[in-house]
Amino acid sequence: MTHLFDPGPVSEPYASLVGAYPGSDVYPPASFRAEWGPIFHRGRLDGSAHLLVIGQDPAQSEAIVRRILVGEAGHRTQGLMAKLGFTRSYLLINTFLYSVYGQTGGEQHKDDQQIVDYRNSWLRSIFGGNTIEVVLALGSLADDAWQKWKQTPVGQTYSPAYAHVTHPTEPESSSGGSAAKLTAAIAAMLQNWNQALATLHPLVTHPDVPGPLVPYGDSFAPGDRIEIPEFDAPAGIPEWMRSPAAWAQRVGKTAADKRANITITIPAGVI
Amino acid sequence: MTHLFDPGPVSEPYASLVGAYPGSDVYPPASFRAEWGPIFHRGRLDGSAHLLVIGQDPAQSEAIVRRILVGEAGHRTQGLMAKLGFTRSYLLINTFLYSVYGQTGGEQHKDDQQIVDYRNSWLRSIFGGNTIEVVLALGSLADDAWQKWKQTPVGQTYSPAYAHVTHPTEPESSSGGSAAKLTAAIAAMLQNWNQALATLHPLVTHPDVPGPLVPYGDSFAPGDRIEIPEFDAPAGIPEWMRSPAAWAQRVGKTAADKRANITITIPAGVI
Repeated sequence: MTHLFDPGPVSEPYASLVGAYPGSDVYPPASFRAEWGPIFHRGRLDGSAHLLVIGQDPAQSEAIVRRILVGEAGHRTQGLMAKLGFTRSYLLINTFLYSVYGQTGGEQHKDDQQIVDYRNSWLRSIFGGNTIEVVLALGSLADDAWQKWKQTPVGQTYSPAYAHVTHPTEPESSSGGSAAKLTAAIAAMLQNWNQALATLHPLVTHPDVPGPLVPYGDSFAPGDRIEIPEFDAPAGIPEWMRSPAAWAQRVGKTAADKRANITITIPAGVI
Repeated sequence: MTHLFDPGPVSEPYASLVGAYPGSDVYPPASFRAEWGPIFHRGRLDGSAHLLVIGQDPAQSEAIVRRILVGEAGHRTQGLMAKLGFTRSYLLINTFLYSVYGQTGGEQHKDDQQIVDYRNSWLRSIFGGNTIEVVLALGSLADDAWQKWKQTPVGQTYSPAYAHVTHPTEPESSSGGSAAKLTAAIAAMLQNWNQALATLHPLVTHPDVPGPLVPYGDSFAPGDRIEIPEFDAPAGIPEWMRSPAAWAQRVGKTAADKRANITITIPAGVI
């Protein structure tokens, strides 16, 4: 059995971008978990991407796998990309390199010039090196990141199809533990996603898997959440780290303890 | 500030070797923690290695960083390599791709042909692609790995300087929690290392940092344990993951719980 893996940002222009990542002087630790290191991307850096996804910020499982959008939000995004026909020719980056800490950390720093400039240098490289047909922004901070790029001289020269959709874990954030609210929020999100899909699907000219658009129902159906492909993970990463199981948690009795901790528990049945 | 990183096994012949790694059919889960995935190497895969180190098996911090010998054993090994003049032109692989589980797992499977064959395919690539002057085996299982390679037709064609030294954390393993025994075991280990250094140091012709041999004393002096360089870690790995702090532990009330867990705690003072 041959295993596939993602080499990561080892070639130019990404190798230089990675070498120059901003630290806690740019991402203040009061608002960002800079201590876990920057996490840059998921997907193709070899020029073959046609779909660009802009997410928000990495969570705990991403700090271990060192790729973005590998947890629950990632599985939902993988399904959303598949609805557009993309199973491989995609590239995902985040609005922020580091995990946002606190409720307002992202809003507070969305206009910080060095954060914007570094992200725009990635977007410049991505658009310069790929034929991006479609851009999806997950959530309002990602939409803001896209608008800021579109205001740059280079950003103005590209006009891919674009949609700003509800962030894939907004239902969990907004429902405050209420099962009824969660169900309603997921239904609303999937309706929002269906609208974006109806707009974007006809504009996709290089899908990996062509076919008619199959919209979402009111809840996630079997197959709507898709495992992160082996070819998106670094070499040797075990399969369960790409699974939908919640295998990484921030644990601790105090906020400080939780911030300093990630507890990994292999899902039942693996060993 | 520019950050350096190790691209990992992304080029041939290593990319193909990584793609073909053996799984739990070859490394039985009763004796190996196959569930954490294989961990392949640390150091240069670009043909610039002159020193080859063979370790034993990866521990918990290695399962997170996805490079071998980054914990306490790694810091001691980094110092040992530096005594020979090597600060960069080294390559480290392990006897086993997966962490050994239980006291006898390694001994039990050291002759397993598929384990030996896969490791020898790495050694064939390493010797074919580098000018290896010196080989260090850490512990008796690594020595056994070396002897098995030397028995192969290709292995017989290379004759680097070689030493089998005491494994860098043998003192902890053998002293059973006794501080006096630990002190004595470290002194004995450093004497063993000094003997190897006296033999090997004159045979090094391409050190990174030339200079006279400075032997160890009876205990580790300041500077004898050296932080893992940034250029040995994947992109974005935080500095504390390369530090000597014991930031990764296997935690749990039962053996099964411990086996399924790695708990990461950022060292005090980082946040």
